[in-house]
Amino acid sequence: MVPSRRPQGFSNSATSPRPLVPAPGEEIPTARVKSVGRHPTIYRKRVEDVDRHAKPGDLLAVYDLDNQMIGYGLFNPRSEIAIRMIRFEYELPDDQFWDELLKSAVQLRRDVLKLDEVTNSYRVIHAEADGLPGLVVDRHGSVLSAEAFSLAMYQRAPEILERLSKLLGTEQTILRTSPASLAQEGFEAEPVITGTMPSRVVIEEFGTRFKVDFAEGHKTGFFCDQRENRKQLASFCKDKTVLDLCCYTGGFAVQAKKLGGASEVIGVDLDEEPLKLAKENANLNQVRCRFVQADAFAYMRDMQSSGRKFDVVVLDPPKLIRSRAEIEEGTRKHFALNRLAMQLVAPGGVMLSCTCAGLLPLSEFLQLIYAAARQAGPEVLAATEEHKARYAARQVQIFSKSGAAADHPVATNCPEGEYLQAVWMRLM
Amino acid sequence: MVPSRRPQGFSNSATSPRPLVPAPGEEIPTARVKSVGRHPTIYRKRVEDVDRHAKPGDLLAVYDLDNQMIGYGLFNPRSEIAIRMIRFEYELPDDQFWDELLKSAVQLRRDVLKLDEVTNSYRVIHAEADGLPGLVVDRHGSVLSAEAFSLAMYQRAPEILERLSKLLGTEQTILRTSPASLAQEGFEAEPVITGTMPSRVVIEEFGTRFKVDFAEGHKTGFFCDQRENRKQLASFCKDKTVLDLCCYTGGFAVQAKKLGGASEVIGVDLDEEPLKLAKENANLNQVRCRFVQADAFAYMRDMQSSGRKFDVVVLDPPKLIRSRAEIEEGTRKHFALNRLAMQLVAPGGVMLSCTCAGLLPLSEFLQLIYAAARQAGPEVLAATEEHKARYAARQVQIFSKSGAAADHPVATNCPEGEYLQAVWMRLM
Repeated sequence: MVPSRRPQGFSNSATSPRPLVPAPGEEIPTARVKSVGRHPTIYRKRVEDVDRHAKPGDLLAVYDLDNQMIGYGLFNPRSEIAIRMIRFEYELPDDQFWDELLKSAVQLRRDVLKLDEVTNSYRVIHAEADGLPGLVVDRHGSVLSAEAFSLAMYQRAPEILERLSKLLGTEQTILRTSPASLAQEGFEAEPVITGTMPSRVVIEEFGTRFKVDFAEGHKTGFFCDQRENRKQLASFCKDKTVLDLCCYTGGFAVQAKKLGGASEVIGVDLDEEPLKLAKENANLNQVRCRFVQADAFAYMRDMQSSGRKFDVVVLDPPKLIRSRAEIEEGTRKHFALNRLAMQLVAPGGVMLSCTCAGLLPLSEFLQLIYAAARQAGPEVLAATEEHKARYAARQVQIFSKSGAAADHPVATNCPEGEYLQAVWMRLM
Repeated sequence: MVPSRRPQGFSNSATSPRPLVPAPGEEIPTARVKSVGRHPTIYRKRVEDVDRHAKPGDLLAVYDLDNQMIGYGLFNPRSEIAIRMIRFEYELPDDQFWDELLKSAVQLRRDVLKLDEVTNSYRVIHAEADGLPGLVVDRHGSVLSAEAFSLAMYQRAPEILERLSKLLGTEQTILRTSPASLAQEGFEAEPVITGTMPSRVVIEEFGTRFKVDFAEGHKTGFFCDQRENRKQLASFCKDKTVLDLCCYTGGFAVQAKKLGGASEVIGVDLDEEPLKLAKENANLNQVRCRFVQADAFAYMRDMQSSGRKFDVVVLDPPKLIRSRAEIEEGTRKHFALNRLAMQLVAPGGVMLSCTCAGLLPLSEFLQLIYAAARQAGPEVLAATEEHKARYAARQVQIFSKSGAAADHPVATNCPEGEYLQAVWMRLM
């Protein structure tokens, strides 16, 4: 799956592991940048000059144009994000700094959120929000699964994972590069595994079990960001019919049945691999869900013409907006999906509509939901020619709004880290 | 408390109860309005003409300028909101219409949200979102407590409350006018009570008991909109020190101790009456909280100079923005309160920051929280003269955002109904 060529030219050695803390006496290259406030991201165009000895992935001492020190950041000359700040203080990030940073991240999940009480699958490091721009780490049972978005974090991830394993008592680690690493950071690499890696682990979430697939070449992961939303959804499912659109590996579907006691659950997804896993997840929990391989649009139109309705509908599409260029088209798709999904909700039924497109802000997402509600009624005979093919409005109450589970925080100095919106509705 | 004069001239008879459904054969006056989409609010300037026989509070058949029927609305010629739409259909709102509307509202709370399992205090009617613009109804134990914002709803509330009482099995009703009724709708009236009204009732929320005060002249009510947030807050309080700023009748404070097992809880409020009730609420649950009568600013500055920190801080100020004219000043106050409160949170501690100012949108509220975080560190020696009295930034993670509990929904055709924002943070 991963091509071995490196068209943008980093050598293999450039992706080799590096220690978190520079050796004593090691010279730290410097950079001068235009004022950046407290944002961890410094774009290339704001970098005035960089020590010519600085190598890709180096830790830099960063100064402003008045030569006032700002702090320390990690360097990649090939990336639009030339520097990612990791410390806004005068002291070098030393052993104690990293210890406290990682302990603090673990503390949020274990001591504050008490996640060990309900699951063994959670996000341990959520990039900037945990002070580690360029890295996310999930814990799935005995495995720490990391994805590096930046070259510098890829180099340092082995040591970070080693330290985290000690804090969490996990046994294996797997480190991958992000699919966008090559285009954005000029590097990619094969997955790096430590420990005797199982091809799959079974994790638990509120007593329900899910398989997480680590087989090489796949990343059929598990989205722990929807954990609380799955639980919430289940609370509306007792003896209800449930449709899970874009069901992936069956997270909502299985919880609707297992935790929620739904009378009937249908999960729909276009991709075969996740659907296989979804079926295995249902079996693993000894519940019956029907999984259908189909395009969500086509499936919904079918249901619509057959007049089928559901008490509970979940719409959790994959990322439909990956860049600014896709905003218009992606917004239109979201609108069309939402309108169709609303038409399948029985009177008095509940719908959960999600978007994981960080480029679609909540306010815009809500606007398209309002618009969808205005056209989600049955087709009506239009009184005038201009109103042809008009749809009646559907009365819709939004009774809650949520986002990613709390182990996916957002730093106040990097609000762009927010990416998941979940809107809960009742449709009359 | 309520002056008996009616300076804007509605007679007493204008506020007399009216039946929900017009008598058979009763003539329905008409109005023609400029296109309004599906929004329930029709401002006076969009009303082209109204039947000259139409009286304040009348049900109107509403048409657009092409004489296409829009639906039915309730009329008040004295109000800026001349018509509040209640049905966007051609059929007159009849007995069945009202039955279904009220049943649907009760169904959300009982069948969908299953609130009876956790409390006997919830919002039953949340104005536009439940199809009843101009009216909110809370259920507190055996009492239905209603507040009418519009003349027409005030007239119809007695019958609505009677019907709701039957659905819910409640025993007493109290109907008040909103404090803004006189200015906005040109009327006010004494509270109307049915049944043998207790001066207080004790309600339960997740096993914790709270007194709700109905004594005449007071509205020391109980904010059931924070129910889920109080529960969530409690989950962070085990063996922690907790500061509840603007604690009102002690909702967060008492739950932090009772449900959460906090080691120490201090509640601060400027007003004596709610504080008395807060103390009674603590006693009722046999927990010890300290309640201090003080201005939140002054109290926080005191704590700051004494160096006191808290593991958990709740900041839930009263509505600081009541009109557009107050946006700037209110935003500034929110900022100052948040910055001070952040400074009192111990490292690794949790803060919940709320605003109930509907005129402060979430995006603006978040911006001021980001700004507060940038200045919530200790005072630092500024390197330059222009940076004098600079505050260091505080690293803050937003790990959750929530709003009013789900019994306070928002209609997609009236998004302005949203008013409560709650932001959950951990401070490093």
